[in-house]
Parts: sequence; structure tokens; C-alpha cells
Amino acid sequence: MPGAANEEQPKAVLTYEGWFSLHATYRINFQMWQSWTVTERKAALLEFKRFIADLEKEHEAHKSSYALYNASGEKGDLLLWILQPTLEEVNAVKTRLHKLKIAAVLEATSSFVSVIEVSNYMQFDINHPRVQERLYPKIPRLRYMCFYPMSKKREQGDNWFMTDRAERGRMMRSHGQIGRKYEDVIKEFTTGACGLDDWEWGITLMSDDVVQFKKIVYEMRFDEVSARFGLFGSFTVGTLLDDQSLTALFA
Amino acid sequence: MPGAANEEQPKAVLTYEGWFSLHATYRINFQMWQSWTVTERKAALLEFKRFIADLEKEHEAHKSSYALYNASGEKGDLLLWILQPTLEEVNAVKTRLHKLKIAAVLEATSSFVSVIEVSNYMQFDINHPRVQERLYPKIPRLRYMCFYPMSKKREQGDNWFMTDRAERGRMMRSHGQIGRKYEDVIKEFTTGACGLDDWEWGITLMSDDVVQFKKIVYEMRFDEVSARFGLFGSFTVGTLLDDQSLTALFA
Amino acid sequence: MPGAANEEQPKAVLTYEGWFSLHATYRINFQMWQSWTVTERKAALLEFKRFIADLEKEHEAHKSSYALYNASGEKGDLLLWILQPTLEEVNAVKTRLHKLKIAAVLEATSSFVSVIEVSNYMQFDINHPRVQERLYPKIPRLRYMCFYPMSKKREQGDNWFMTDRAERGRMMRSHGQIGRKYEDVIKEFTTGACGLDDWEWGITLMSDDVVQFKKIVYEMRFDEVSARFGLFGSFTVGTLLDDQSLTALFA
Amino acid sequence: MPGAANEEQPKAVLTYEGWFSLHATYRINFQMWQSWTVTERKAALLEFKRFIADLEKEHEAHKSSYALYNASGEKGDLLLWILQPTLEEVNAVKTRLHKLKIAAVLEATSSFVSVIEVSNYMQFDINHPRVQERLYPKIPRLRYMCFYPMSKKREQGDNWFMTDRAERGRMMRSHGQIGRKYEDVIKEFTTGACGLDDWEWGITLMSDDVVQFKKIVYEMRFDEVSARFGLFGSFTVGTLLDDQSLTALFA
Amino acid sequence: MPGAANEEQPKAVLTYEGWFSLHATYRINFQMWQSWTVTERKAALLEFKRFIADLEKEHEAHKSSYALYNASGEKGDLLLWILQPTLEEVNAVKTRLHKLKIAAVLEATSSFVSVIEVSNYMQFDINHPRVQERLYPKIPRLRYMCFYPMSKKREQGDNWFMTDRAERGRMMRSHGQIGRKYEDVIKEFTTGACGLDDWEWGITLMSDDVVQFKKIVYEMRFDEVSARFGLFGSFTVGTLLDDQSLTALFA
Repeated sequence: MPGAANEEQPKAVLTYEGWFSLHATYRINFQMWQSWTVTERKAALLEFKRFIADLEKEHEAHKSSYALYNASGEKGDLLLWILQPTLEEVNAVKTRLHKLKIAAVLEATSSFVSVIEVSNYMQFDINHPRVQERLYPKIPRLRYMCFYPMSKKREQGDNWFMTDRAERGRMMRSHGQIGRKYEDVIKEFTTGACGLDDWEWGITLMSDDVVQFKKIVYEMRFDEVSARFGLFGSFTVGTLLDDQSLTALFA
Repeated sequence: MPGAANEEQPKAVLTYEGWFSLHATYRINFQMWQSWTVTERKAALLEFKRFIADLEKEHEAHKSSYALYNASGEKGDLLLWILQPTLEEVNAVKTRLHKLKIAAVLEATSSFVSVIEVSNYMQFDINHPRVQERLYPKIPRLRYMCFYPMSKKREQGDNWFMTDRAERGRMMRSHGQIGRKYEDVIKEFTTGACGLDDWEWGITLMSDDVVQFKKIVYEMRFDEVSARFGLFGSFTVGTLLDDQSLTALFA
Repeated sequence: MPGAANEEQPKAVLTYEGWFSLHATYRINFQMWQSWTVTERKAALLEFKRFIADLEKEHEAHKSSYALYNASGEKGDLLLWILQPTLEEVNAVKTRLHKLKIAAVLEATSSFVSVIEVSNYMQFDINHPRVQERLYPKIPRLRYMCFYPMSKKREQGDNWFMTDRAERGRMMRSHGQIGRKYEDVIKEFTTGACGLDDWEWGITLMSDDVVQFKKIVYEMRFDEVSARFGLFGSFTVGTLLDDQSLTALFA
Repeated sequence: MPGAANEEQPKAVLTYEGWFSLHATYRINFQMWQSWTVTERKAALLEFKRFIADLEKEHEAHKSSYALYNASGEKGDLLLWILQPTLEEVNAVKTRLHKLKIAAVLEATSSFVSVIEVSNYMQFDINHPRVQERLYPKIPRLRYMCFYPMSKKREQGDNWFMTDRAERGRMMRSHGQIGRKYEDVIKEFTTGACGLDDWEWGITLMSDDVVQFKKIVYEMRFDEVSARFGLFGSFTVGTLLDDQSLTALFA
Repeated sequence: MPGAANEEQPKAVLTYEGWFSLHATYRINFQMWQSWTVTERKAALLEFKRFIADLEKEHEAHKSSYALYNASGEKGDLLLWILQPTLEEVNAVKTRLHKLKIAAVLEATSSFVSVIEVSNYMQFDINHPRVQERLYPKIPRLRYMCFYPMSKKREQGDNWFMTDRAERGRMMRSHGQIGRKYEDVIKEFTTGACGLDDWEWGITLMSDDVVQFKKIVYEMRFDEVSARFGLFGSFTVGTLLDDQSLTALFA
């Protein structure tokens, strides 16, 4: 009797949590930057690169991870994503960044605090390698990154949290099928933010083809989960910053 | 005849009020801070620590209470919670903080004025020790703090304040059952803000395990009280600042 | 035939208007204030007190009225309420304030323009002493002040302005009964802002017991007028500033 | 067969357009103003008055029009309304203002771009003198001005743009009847902003009795057009600035 | 069996993508500009014109395109539209602009990141000249430009993404018929922003008659696609800046 079984299942789906997460965007004040002497700029950029190198070393050792992108549009210029084992460490990375010389020319324009989340819609044990890989991901160095926060609607008739668990499961499976169509071209990360920030989830997409972000978000919008229940925050997109393009950005 | 009795009960549940409350977040301008001389910084930090020490002394004597956390993300760096016997004293603490030297590098980014509230859903007399303990709490020094303001929806079909008292009581009891599942790992404080600030209530959660904030908020979201009637403001989370970590933050 | 009579009554209730009103909050930049010399501060405070004394003199002579409170939380530090016979005079008081030396350390954080309003739900003639007293009030010097703007909902099913006049009258009388329960502990002032500012009304409450603001706002929220039709703006609360506490604030 | 005729009428009502329009508010930084020398202030005010005099000259010659008011509350201090034959000329007036010395103490706090609009609900030919007078108005010098932007709702059940044309016509006529009750005391101007700014229309009211703004807006709110379909932006009200009061403002 | 065929068609309409796009507005700080020496201003304007000239050269060679307009109202003074083959190049143009001397007097007030989009409602192959022309457009130099972002509603009863594909197609064709009425006087560009920015689409209109922007937006608002499903962001309108008017603006 699946109906009866469903009755006894908790409404909230069990989730596993991995590394803590901070997404943040920063505007660069190039006018102030250019007012500095060449020596000052060199020192500041070197110090910033050391900060990045330390993140990279931990990332290589798979102790934590991060990503640095050049944000598009006038919402900001840097899009930084930090993953660390504890919230204290996430805070420490933020504080270290704020104390860098270069921070004098950076203005934080948005941020999102969350934690890597795997929900048991995946049907795996927490120790399964694919779950572990998702909980403690090594963020890939793809050309483009897209980040947006989202929640589920709680309105009369379209109330996700009043919807029967089996029905939610059915819709999430259909939603996942769209995702799978893109899994060769888009790497997707879900972080949970209930109790941590203003939205329920954060979605981070990475791809070597930025148009795929548009394709997947547009196609998913027709899926019932998004069409009826999706509430979306601000979308930020950026291009990968490696050592060379970072140098060019601050040239 | 409980139905008839209900008819005669006032719609608004009786509440008891304790200490007045201010939650506020502040951004630290580390660039300005670092532009000060070592002597200036030492003096400013010492003065700030004296301010905290005075709060601590009153807290120890159970005359008032407070908490100081390192806020996560770019909403701010300090998350301060003040509890005082009168609104005048809450204002005085704010003013004293604003006049500290260190205030030159602090920018207030949010605040919430309220008063500790115990509603008679608890079924206790105001003089009961458990009520007194809730009205005049000694805020624990747990590793993590979470704060968010909330209101109840007043929409066609989902209007909390047009819902029958008995029905509200039933839903609140079910809501409380979820809370009780977490009472070993989360300490919860409710403050009322009707007539004092822009939301109806403030919820403060404290725990040694930050993931529990996510678990309880997520699980409760499926409960009818939140799913149909909950309106949530901005969530702020932070890590405990003791003398050592406060020194490190401003190092 | 009351029904027929109602048909012929205009939908909009007749209102009487009294003094023009400005509520405004200001943040004090204590860092800038403290950067001034003792002489500069003395002069600025003296000049500000002269401004207040002039308002007080007119208030004593019942030519106009005003109130000055220390706003709670980080929305601002001063909460000023001005009542003047004409909008020109309201503007003049604002301009005079802006030109004071002390204005260099004040930042306006919100304001509300309206006019004292008495609606004929009160059933009095405009010349009745109780109406006159309400139109040209001598604002009392109670310990606490609370201000919030509000409008009435215009949604499908909950549209105040599409509701039958008799029905509105019935609801307003029930609403008024709650108000009367508090009339010994709360002094209430209504100002109308249609065509003057972004909300339809402003409500100012004054009391020697700040908890009563919470009690009345909470209890009224269950009343149909608020529960179904009330839209509320930002709530600001403050503590009375007399000469002594004003001096202390700027000490 | 009026029904059939209606079928063939376009849904959108034909409109005539006149002068282009800019409403803008500016905050005066009196602290910076007072930091200038008397000579600097004299020069800046003189230059500003020349700017106004040039607008006045064109206004007198009926080549364009304008109005300058002292805005109430803390949304701003100047409320400027510009009418010019082309959008290029509207832009030129804005740019000239921005380049004035006095602009150093002005901060733009809001603006609205639109064009004078007469809809054919008036039943006149475009060449009719009353239409021409409305399209190219000589803005009167009344004591008070009120401005607000508005749109029409597009919600399930209350969707203006899905409402039958004949039904809209009936409602607009009823709406107009309220307007006509006030035509002796209020001069009303409608500008259209579809495709030009964030709202669909701007309404400018002028009167020698500011209370009439409140009366008409309140009475109209009960009319179906406003009650069911009106969406209102921010209301700004101000008092007339003539040469003398302008001098006093900057004294 | 068209119905059956429809069943099998994907819900999301296939789209073709062309050049990447950035719309941005900037406020000019004329006070700071005028504080510079004539030499400084000359150098800064010359450098800015070289930046424009480089965009123009690429535009002439049809390698990319751009447009520069003088924005109306107080939302900003410059309205810049950039089209480039890759997102990296869009970012590079933004960064180059930010590093110009003139950027010291520019403040970004809004932006929108998207990509030129042609949906297959047009029934053409991607290689069809008319599609290619739309994907890689040479932006015309018309006197006026209008830009606004938009999304489609997802509400109970008015949910575009839950609407049957055939029904959407029917509505889009009717919508297109209105567009075609204006094709002689308005040039329209659609960019898609799903996954790139906060709205689903951006609409750019260009015309030698600014009133046509109002006409088309108003007429379309009565069309079901807009009336029931359109959600509109901020509208920005501007006048063409050629070398001469750009010089005049900064004179």
C-alpha cells in the first residue's frame, strides 16, 4: 500500500549536507585602483593572488574548494564562490579577503550563505561515492558560471510545501530528467540555505558553453516544478578568471 | 462545551512580555580600521571590549543579557543581540555603541526592535519558573546563532488572523511538536514586534551545530503554520565571538 | 429604509482636516559629531535647542504642536513629529532644521507627510470641542511614541473600497471598540495622507507603557478591518526626549 | 448594433500627444550650501534663477512650460516639472540643470519621463481648442502641486486591459464625473508614460487648497476604476516657489 | 492530427542565439567633470571617443555592434548597448569602459546581460538571411531608443509556462500582428536573459518618432500576451548621441 506508506513518511525529504558555502559579488573601483602607484598595485595584486593560491592549494588537496569568475554586467566584477568544511572557515576566508589591500577597491554587492545539499531523491546512501563527490565537490574550471537563489512558492493552489510527498517526488523526477539532458554540458551544484540566508536554495551552474545556461533555465521554466512553484532571485553570470585573465583585469 | 467556550475566548492569545530586545548587524570597514595606527586600534578595541565586558557583567548578574556573533556573508560582520529591562536601556546601549571609537568603522546594515514574548499556548502562569526563565533568559554561549523576523499571512484563504482560535491552537501545537524534536540541539527565543518593528515576530535560534538551523527551518516549512501562513524576512547567521575570536577578527 | 438611505450616501466618508503633519526620522552621525570641538558642539546643540524651544513655545500657545523622540533600532536616532497650520509652515520647519549646524550630523532616513483627519464615523459636528481637540491636538509628553503608515487592501475578495458603506461602518465600529479598551493607556492620532504621501493614513500612538503598542496592534490584527484589509508600512518606536535626555544623547 | 460596433473598435483608446514631460525631485544639501562663501552662493543662486527665468520666458511665450515647487517631507526639497516640445529638449533642460553651480548641492531623488496625453474619451478632434489647450498647457501658478505615477492592474478578475472597451468607457465616464466635481478647485494634467518610464501614466494636480488633493484622491479611491484597477506609485506634494520664496529657501 | 503532434512537441520553443548583449545606464557627475581642468576634460573625452570609435569600427565591419544614447530622466545620462560575439568580449568592453578616465565621473545605475534571441515562431531556418540579420544585427542610428526587461507571469490562472504550446503559439501570432503594424516606424530587438539576468527577456526598440514607443507598448498591453502574462521591468528611453551631441553633452 504505497499510499499508506507515504502517509507515514515525513513530509520533509531527508538531506545530506557537505561543505559550507559563500557566493559573493564585488564591484571593482578601477578609478581608485588606477590612482595607486604601480608599486602599490603590484603589491596588492600579489597579495590577492597569494590569497587565491592558498585557496587553490586547499582545493588541489581536496580540503575545500572555490571558484573565481569575472561577473558580467554592472552588478559587480568579481564572482567568488567559497566552499569550506565549517561556517567558521567560510567567515575566516571572507575576513581575510576584507583585510587584503585590494579590498580597498572592492565593494560587496551581494552574497549568499548556504551549505552543499544532497536530497534523498537521489536514492543513495551518504557514503556512496557519488553522494560524497557531490557533498565535497572539486569545483571544475569551466569557462562560465551562473548562480541564482530560489525558493518554492507557498500560495493558494500553488503551495509546494502543502503538496503531497509522492506528488512532489513525481514532479522532481520529471524535473531531474530535464537536468540529465544537460549533464554532459552543464555541471550543477545545489546548496541549501533554509535558516542560513533569504532563499531556500542556491543553484550554481558551470559550463564551457554559456548559452546552455539559458537553454536549461528556459526549458525548465516549462516544467511544473518551476512553472508553478519556482521563485527565482537575481541571476549572476561570469567568465572564468585564471591567473592570466586576473592579471589582465587589474592591468 | 469547548466550542462555546472558544466562542467567548478573545481571538488574540494572551502574551507575557519580558526584556526588550534589539538585534542589529554591522559591517566592519577593515580598510579604515587598518589605516589607523596600532595605538589607535588598540585603544578602540579596548574600549569596545570594555563595552562588551559591561554587558557581560550585567549578563552574569542576570540583570540583562546579550550575544555577539560574527555574521556570515556580506550582509554584515557583527551580529549583536541586546536584551534590557526597558526600551530606554536598549536605546542607551545602542547610543553608547555608536559613540565608541570603533563605531567609526562600523556601518549598521539591519536592525530589529522587539520584546521577549511568551504566549499562553504554553499553558503556564506568568510566575512559573519556566515562563520566568523564558521572559528573562540568560542567552547561552553556543557556537552558532540564527535570526529572522516573520509575520503571518493575511490573504484570501490563508489568513491566519481570520482563522478560528481553536484551529490556530491545533496548528500551533503541531508546530510545537516539531520544535520539541529539536529542543536538545537548538535553543529557541521568540520576541514579539507588533507595534515595534516591521514584522510581527523575531525568531532567534542558537545551536552548537549550524546544520540544525537548516533542518528545523526546512522541516517546519512543511508544517501548515509555516507552509500556509508563514512570511519570512531576512535570515542572518553567525559564529560565536568570544574574547579570542574578537581579537582575531580585528587583528 | 436604511438600505435605500445607504444607497444615496456617498461612498467616501466625510472627513474633517486639521493641522498639517510631518513625521521624520534622522540618523545621528556620532563620529562626525565627536570630531567637532567642544565649542562647536555646544553651539550646535544650543542652536538645535533653540529650534526645539521655538516649537515648544508655539506648542504651549497651542498655535502648533510637535514631539521629539529617541528612535529605537538602526532606522534612525531622532523621531520628530511636526504639526503646523499650513503645508508651507511644515516645509519651513523642515528647511529650518536642515539649515541648523547640527543637521551636518543628521541623515534623514524616512518621512511621512499628512494632515490630521477626523472621519465622521465619530458622529460629531466639526465645531464640537472633541473634534476640535482632535483636529488641533496638543501632543502629550508621554514616555513612548509609535508611528506607522497604513493603507486599505484593494484585492479580489478583500477590497475595502468596493465594500458597502454600511458594512464598512459596522467593521469600523467594531474596530473602534478595541481602540476604546486602550484609551486610558494609549493616546491615538490619525492623519490622512491620500494625495500627500505613499500610504493612505498615518497612525501615531503615545503611551507611558510601550508594551501597550504591541498589545493593541496585535489585538487589532485579529479584527476584520486589519485582518482582511490592513496593509502596514514600517513601524518606528521611540522614547521621549526632554531637555535632559537630549543633552545626554549628544553628550 | 453597438455591440457589433464595439467588436470592431480597437481595444486601445486613441490618444493625442503634446509636449514631452519630466517630473523630478532634488534634495538640497544645505550643509554644503552653507559652506560656500556668500559670493559663491550669490553667483550660484543667480545662475539658477537665470535658468528659471529662461524657462519662464519660454513659458510666457507658450513655447514650453514648467513649474517649480518646494517638495514636502524628506523625499526631496525641489519638485521640478518640465514640458518641452521634444524629448531632446527635455534632456537638454536636465543637462543644463546638472551643469549649474547649484547642482553641486542638489541630489536627484526621483524622476518620471512622459508625454502630455489626451485620450479620445473626451470626444474632441485634435484641433479643438480644448484639446490643444490640454496638449500644450500653460501650467498655472497655484499654491500647491501633487504628482504621482499610476498603472492599471492586470490581475485575475481585476484586469483592466482584458476588460471590454464599452465597460472601460462606462467606468471612465463615472471616474470623470468625480473629477468634474473638483474642476473648480483642482487643475489636473495627465501624461502618458507607456514605453517611456516605469508606470503607465503620471497625474499632476494643482490647487490653491492642498486639502483638495486628499479629498479627490480619497473619493476616487472608492470609484471602481481606482478601487479595482488602480496601482499607485509614490505621491509627492509641494508648495509654490516664486522668486521670493526661492530666495528665502536658499537664504 | 495536429493535437497529437502538439503533444509530442517540446513545451519550450526552440531558440537561436546570436551576439551577447549588455545594456547599461550611467549617471554623469557633471560637478566632478567641471572640477577638472580643460586639459583633463579634453583628454578624457578624447579617450572616451576613441573607445566609441573602436566600437564603431567593429560595427562598420559587422564584427559586433553597439549604440549610445542620452538617457532621459534621472535614472542616468548615458544608455549604452553593447553586442559582442562572446560573453568574454562583452565583459572586456565593460572593463575597458570602467578603466577610462571619464569613468571617474560615471556611476552605473542599471544593467542587463542577455543574448540576441530568435525563436522559431518565425518559422525560418537558422541560416535564412532574415534570421542571420536578426542574430547579428547592425543596430541602426535612429533618433530614439527604448529598453525594458520583461518576464511572463506564472500565477494561478495566468501561468504562461503552464499554457498549452498551441495556445501560446496562437497568442504570439496575434501579438506579432500588432508588432507588424509598427514595423515601418519601429525597429525591434529581442534578447533572451534566462540564466543570465533577472528577467526572461529584454526588448530594445528604436525609432525616429519617440511617440511610437508609447503607442506600441500601450496597444500591446491590451493584447492577451501582455495583458494576462506580461511582467515589465524598468523602462529607459534616450536620444541618439552622435559625435556632435556627445561633445555638447560634455561641453
